[in-house]
Amino acid sequence: MKHFNIAVIAGDGIGPEVIAEGKKVFSGIAEMDGGFSVSFEDFPWGCEYYLKTGEMMPTDGLDILKPFDAIYLGAVGYPGVPDHVSLGGLLLQIRRGFDEYINLRPVRLLKGAPCPLANVLPDDINMIVVRENSEGEYANVGAHLYPGTEREMALQTGVFSRHGCERVIRYAYELARLEKRSLTSISKGNALRYSMVFWDEIFAEIGREYPDVETHSLLVDAASMFFVKDPGRFEIVVTSNLFGDILTDLGAAIAGGMGLAAGANLNPERKYPSMFEPIHGSAPDIAGQETANPLASIWSISQMLEFLHEQEWAERILSAIETLLVERRTLTPDLGGSAKTSEIGAAILEILER
Amino acid sequence: MKHFNIAVIAGDGIGPEVIAEGKKVFSGIAEMDGGFSVSFEDFPWGCEYYLKTGEMMPTDGLDILKPFDAIYLGAVGYPGVPDHVSLGGLLLQIRRGFDEYINLRPVRLLKGAPCPLANVLPDDINMIVVRENSEGEYANVGAHLYPGTEREMALQTGVFSRHGCERVIRYAYELARLEKRSLTSISKGNALRYSMVFWDEIFAEIGREYPDVETHSLLVDAASMFFVKDPGRFEIVVTSNLFGDILTDLGAAIAGGMGLAAGANLNPERKYPSMFEPIHGSAPDIAGQETANPLASIWSISQMLEFLHEQEWAERILSAIETLLVERRTLTPDLGGSAKTSEIGAAILEILER
Ligand SMILES: CC(C)[C@H](C(=O)O)[C@@H](O)C(=O)O
Ligand SMILES: CC(C)[C@H](C(=O)O)[C@@H](O)C(=O)O
Repeated sequence: MKHFNIAVIAGDGIGPEVIAEGKKVFSGIAEMDGGFSVSFEDFPWGCEYYLKTGEMMPTDGLDILKPFDAIYLGAVGYPGVPDHVSLGGLLLQIRRGFDEYINLRPVRLLKGAPCPLANVLPDDINMIVVRENSEGEYANVGAHLYPGTEREMALQTGVFSRHGCERVIRYAYELARLEKRSLTSISKGNALRYSMVFWDEIFAEIGREYPDVETHSLLVDAASMFFVKDPGRFEIVVTSNLFGDILTDLGAAIAGGMGLAAGANLNPERKYPSMFEPIHGSAPDIAGQETANPLASIWSISQMLEFLHEQEWAERILSAIETLLVERRTLTPDLGGSAKTSEIGAAILEILER
Repeated sequence: MKHFNIAVIAGDGIGPEVIAEGKKVFSGIAEMDGGFSVSFEDFPWGCEYYLKTGEMMPTDGLDILKPFDAIYLGAVGYPGVPDHVSLGGLLLQIRRGFDEYINLRPVRLLKGAPCPLANVLPDDINMIVVRENSEGEYANVGAHLYPGTEREMALQTGVFSRHGCERVIRYAYELARLEKRSLTSISKGNALRYSMVFWDEIFAEIGREYPDVETHSLLVDAASMFFVKDPGRFEIVVTSNLFGDILTDLGAAIAGGMGLAAGANLNPERKYPSMFEPIHGSAPDIAGQETANPLASIWSISQMLEFLHEQEWAERILSAIETLLVERRTLTPDLGGSAKTSEIGAAILEILER
């Protein structure tokens, strides 16, 4: 029997609460299916670990994670640990260390999900954002010069390699071809004339190999406007690390909220494990109160199953989430319900069992 | 009598159409007021000029502009001239060359203006974004390495000087103190650990001098979400060049559209002339059709008058725009009307004369 061995880093704040529900769903599905089994190994890494050890994860953390079929991550960050330390030492280190260069983030308004936009129907918002996830603005290259003087300055360098741009852009073209949908590249060539002009050139260049794919190019400022005024124009979107970060939070805002936004950090070659996470933060203010919405975390289990070639279960989870939203019986407070975090996994399984 | 000498760069696309209306309004006001006069000198710089001369403006362009009381700019950019050439050679060069380090952009939903957000009332959106406008991500520092090889890469360096950060952040604190409103700094310290951590430190440091000002700090991704979900939480906002660019287009989307978004590029010390512009682009697809909305361009005349110490007229123009929106008699197609661009200036003056 097929077996999936999943590394779990529940992390900080609401991480453990929402991850628990995703695990329930995966385990329940394995039982229903009968064709595969799953086991989870929990790693207590994160800010508490940092306060004890001075590191967000052990020095050989990546070696420990490497044999797993996938990584399931909750959330990282807690007051008292600077964000660039906590995120840089765990989330971003895994993304880069395992060359998870594709960050796949669906922006899809399910039926029953709340939307702050007037005159938008669920089917109007249904895009997939392919975010570059290994370099670009997040390359972590920079300097802090002349500290303590009037000449003090900080330099932050975005690194856009041909290799790095080509592979994410090509991935997006392949996805657009496969799904027979248009592809929009979002950049900022009019002001960032090194990085973004280079990006635009590569986007046009690779496009010549995909004459069947309809393409568009937008400036990031205009794109953020259209996310609000006309989100239906986007199908597959490809963009840089930073722009993808901003646009997918904006995407979450228009498509049901952060409680419904999942993301997959993929190493498509499967040389290293891929990582699946809700894209929300650790929300320390509501941690432990059982009010956090675990649907994003469950949605990322759907993404994990898709990557593990269990496409049918991936789709069934998504429609179970949609059913839950439409029936409105078991929802967390952010969605207007009064259910506890710990009730949601069972509610999803109940729908799947019908 | 006081006299204002304004340099006009109408620029490309719809620039000339929308600028013409702003000039009408300024001239009409000077007549009504009787206490000051205005003259405009037109400079035919932009993409057509570039195609003839190879430059977006003459080499001594800045020297020519320097004696003016203000610069009134339409829009820059036209197909056939790469955006980084046209913008870099005119708009961005003036911003940097005249040390217009404050980009002041009101995001305010006037009564009668369209809003794509459900459940938002005009008074709910009323913020001023103070965007850094001279350095940061737009410093224009970078490199294109190993072209034509597999190792090809582009580097784009953001430059954040203490001087540059301090002055814009201090400006924003002063504004917040003056207006007795809260101040929100928007950055991205969790991922950009050189530039944005430095920004955050300076924001906190200067804050100690302003204990009376209520402050908030937000990550740019979270901020873009809140622009949509809860724009009422923002009063005065201070942010970097790139983030300000993105957030003010998003701001335009939620506050009436690009036809209603104005921006002031200020050199607060008045050592060099400041520049006022609608923040929309040149929209070559609709140029010459008399359908462009000149209200943003007229709003930027309001900003210009405020900077020229004609505060009362600045406010009267804004309320005339609001009256026009509420009465709905003379609006351009983007606002659901059928008026021509060239009718709007007169309509505003008619309201001002009532
Ligand atoms: C936590 C932060 C470093 C991260 C990012 O910016 O990538 C997050 O916002 C995300 O989008 O996954
Ligand atoms: C045209 C472009 C270079 C400019 C910018 O990014 O600053 C514009 O988008 C703006 O916001 O004024």
